Amino acid sequence: MKATVLVRPKQGILDPQGQAVEASLKQLGFSVQSTRIGRVVDLEVQANDASAARAEIERMCEQLLANPLIESYEIELTEPPT
Amino acid sequence: MKATVLVRPKQGILDPQGQAVEASLKQLGFSVQSTRIGRVVDLEVQANDASAARAEIERMCEQLLANPLIESYEIELTEPPT
Repeated sequence: MKATVLVRPKQGILDPQGQAVEASLKQLGFSVQSTRIGRVVDLEVQANDASAARAEIERMCEQLLANPLIESYEIELTEPPT
Repeated sequence: MKATVLVRPKQGILDPQGQAVEASLKQLGFSVQSTRIGRVVDLEVQANDASAARAEIERMCEQLLANPLIESYEIELTEPPT
């Protein structure tokens, strides 16, 4: 089962990468604000159904993909093409 | 106008970060494959309508947010709460 995980810095947590990108965008002449940078992880997991897949991916996030102290994650399941 | 940009390595392009994460996940006992890692950029852009915002963000992607040679990007516009 394919899934996409979005990992973002939590609200209130400093995001130096986002600040740097925002400063560069402004220097290029763009009008932007509230720039925040996170990661997107696409993966394929072996699971019997959607809820098992989601539970498995949640464990991956807690253990490796995200730092739950400072990052939030969002899991989107994409059904495999049949 | 708020937007979310997903930047991913193009198909066929090597993704060492994804390979490393996949190896670590496997070592932790997870059954995963096809792991690919990209970036998610959340930002707020000043534009009069959705198509202007999209065009502006496309320019940002071409100039700074993505490397069009090796990365593809996907723009999702989120209407501002009114």
